[in-house]
Amino acid sequence: MRAYLDHASSSPLRPEVREALSEVLEIAQCDPGRPYEEALVVRNLIEDARSSVARLVQVTPRQVIFTSSIAESINHGVQIFGGNRVVLATGAERSSTLEAARVQGSLELIGLDRLGHPDLDALDARLSHGGVSLVCCQVANHETGVSGQAEEIIALVRRHGVAVHVDATIAAGHVALNLGQLDADIATVSSELLGGPQGVAALIVRKGTVLPPMIFGGAQERARRAGLENPLGIVGFGIAAEVLCAPGKLASEEQAARSHLAHLETAALNVGGVHAVGDSESEYRAPWLRCFTIDGVESEGVVMGLDRAGVSVHSGSACSAESLEPSPVLAAMGLEADHSLRLSVGWSTTEAEVERFATVFPEVVARLRSLRR
Amino acid sequence: MRAYLDHASSSPLRPEVREALSEVLEIAQCDPGRPYEEALVVRNLIEDARSSVARLVQVTPRQVIFTSSIAESINHGVQIFGGNRVVLATGAERSSTLEAARVQGSLELIGLDRLGHPDLDALDARLSHGGVSLVCCQVANHETGVSGQAEEIIALVRRHGVAVHVDATIAAGHVALNLGQLDADIATVSSELLGGPQGVAALIVRKGTVLPPMIFGGAQERARRAGLENPLGIVGFGIAAEVLCAPGKLASEEQAARSHLAHLETAALNVGGVHAVGDSESEYRAPWLRCFTIDGVESEGVVMGLDRAGVSVHSGSACSAESLEPSPVLAAMGLEADHSLRLSVGWSTTEAEVERFATVFPEVVARLRSLRR
Repeated sequence: MRAYLDHASSSPLRPEVREALSEVLEIAQCDPGRPYEEALVVRNLIEDARSSVARLVQVTPRQVIFTSSIAESINHGVQIFGGNRVVLATGAERSSTLEAARVQGSLELIGLDRLGHPDLDALDARLSHGGVSLVCCQVANHETGVSGQAEEIIALVRRHGVAVHVDATIAAGHVALNLGQLDADIATVSSELLGGPQGVAALIVRKGTVLPPMIFGGAQERARRAGLENPLGIVGFGIAAEVLCAPGKLASEEQAARSHLAHLETAALNVGGVHAVGDSESEYRAPWLRCFTIDGVESEGVVMGLDRAGVSVHSGSACSAESLEPSPVLAAMGLEADHSLRLSVGWSTTEAEVERFATVFPEVVARLRSLRR
Repeated sequence: MRAYLDHASSSPLRPEVREALSEVLEIAQCDPGRPYEEALVVRNLIEDARSSVARLVQVTPRQVIFTSSIAESINHGVQIFGGNRVVLATGAERSSTLEAARVQGSLELIGLDRLGHPDLDALDARLSHGGVSLVCCQVANHETGVSGQAEEIIALVRRHGVAVHVDATIAAGHVALNLGQLDADIATVSSELLGGPQGVAALIVRKGTVLPPMIFGGAQERARRAGLENPLGIVGFGIAAEVLCAPGKLASEEQAARSHLAHLETAALNVGGVHAVGDSESEYRAPWLRCFTIDGVESEGVVMGLDRAGVSVHSGSACSAESLEPSPVLAAMGLEADHSLRLSVGWSTTEAEVERFATVFPEVVARLRSLRR
């Protein structure tokens, strides 16, 4: 048995999703935009999925645009709202935000303190200076789980009449989240982080906000994103959302995640020279992921060593096997970015997986440290 | 039994694809870019698929970028190569090409004759005038099947030192196609038009051509397209390509398509006032789709009437159920764009489906004409 502790990269497909997709495979694939009978079947499946995703994050179905990834959703928002003016983001943002804005030549960064909190005074001052077209913030950070104080930031940004994108990927499906109330201009929600398929995500648009497409050439998604729909991805995403909308489900998974994460944290901190990263107050943290720094060993060795011991974890925020770069989030917090380890749990996590980590982690760290001496 | 004669919008999933995807559903979903064991499994599946798609169109795997749709592939090419200069395209191009270029303010059109052939003299003259950054052409047209004379156009465009995109979606997987030899800077190949899943496509890049991303924030697809991979889509696409690479398979499916299409054409032209659209010389036509105009009745009525009679067809090139606009391709050919009907066959087409069309089509047209009197 392996222990998969990297749900914040992607969760395994939920059994309900696998089952639904097996059924979708038997349905006649066709273009849901056509006016014939087969198309109506596919269109209904897609609209049911849209309703489920909308319900999960408490918006209306018309606010949901299905895209192909978190990266596409964020790029869409940044490319449209960023324009030639300034995109303000914290160093905690996903690389999609930072790179999309950087390529437009419009990125400016707002600092983080060592606990991972964005500097709201600096944000306010910069907004007062003018010229900002978009502010990017997060409900919770994808590397540390620390709250991005989205509510406060959105209120502040609104006062300056500037648009705001909120990355809700770490919160949606893991804690109660009301994006309707949060009322950002645009928000990104993922599928794979809540047990739906990879290759689909959502961009949530504020009521009354007109979002021009980034991909042109068709009237799909109410003319906000051209391209033939991905029924397997969309239906799977919808089923994952539907599962999480069942009464008590979100709360019970959150409770289980807190418990697993607490055990993992105890096991990690039991090893000398291991430090928890970011604000530890639970109200300021997502309940399902936690980041650590480990004195004297580099991330890569820890990840590889744990893999050989049957435990899958993540470190750093590089998005490809071809590069394992130091976590920019930790660097922005002034921490040792190449000594980090992220543990994240999800719907499939068992106590046995947690135990496995607790058993092998001290051995892996001890071995790596002994090699350095 | 219904007759599905709209393969040029999307083909049903091949049985081999359905079977492979059922197996993929059982594999632990994870980010293939991570360095642990589960990720290697997914990564290998994706690279196998890349090799199969590459083999189908005779390029190297490194030339294949997986995207989420034909529209995304085309937009990527047009946004990167179009820049602020002129994009030259015929009126026969997909709306993705036309709209992506139009939004950049860079679209210029090259005429078509009534047989659907692009005006190569006009293209040459316009290229000589200078200022063109990209020419968009097609191996075969998606509404009429008429050859886009890509080989001649690419040779001509090369002489002017301009970049070229070729829409190979109607040719790939239906006729022998060597994109390596064709040697366009970029080419688009679809999955759903050859019996793979919707929600995935490929952008083929010429050897030595550096293609910056349209979606930023990750090193996926050799840093040419950020975003977590879609294993279900990619694997399904790969299996469809693999099936078509089996010795004799492409030729036998092409032969069957020609036969079915010939029967459909006879049945359609048996009805008075029905005319075949575009060059009828088979060397200038894709063997699996054919367009007609019908005197005295509008497309919408024919599509609806055939649907009620259990036959699914397409008319016009609108990409959404919310709009059924006249076919821009036929309009560019100077034909009655709102009186068109497109029939297209594929791997699953049976003689019984063809018979069904032959039986009901005269009745549907007669009824519609009687309503107008």
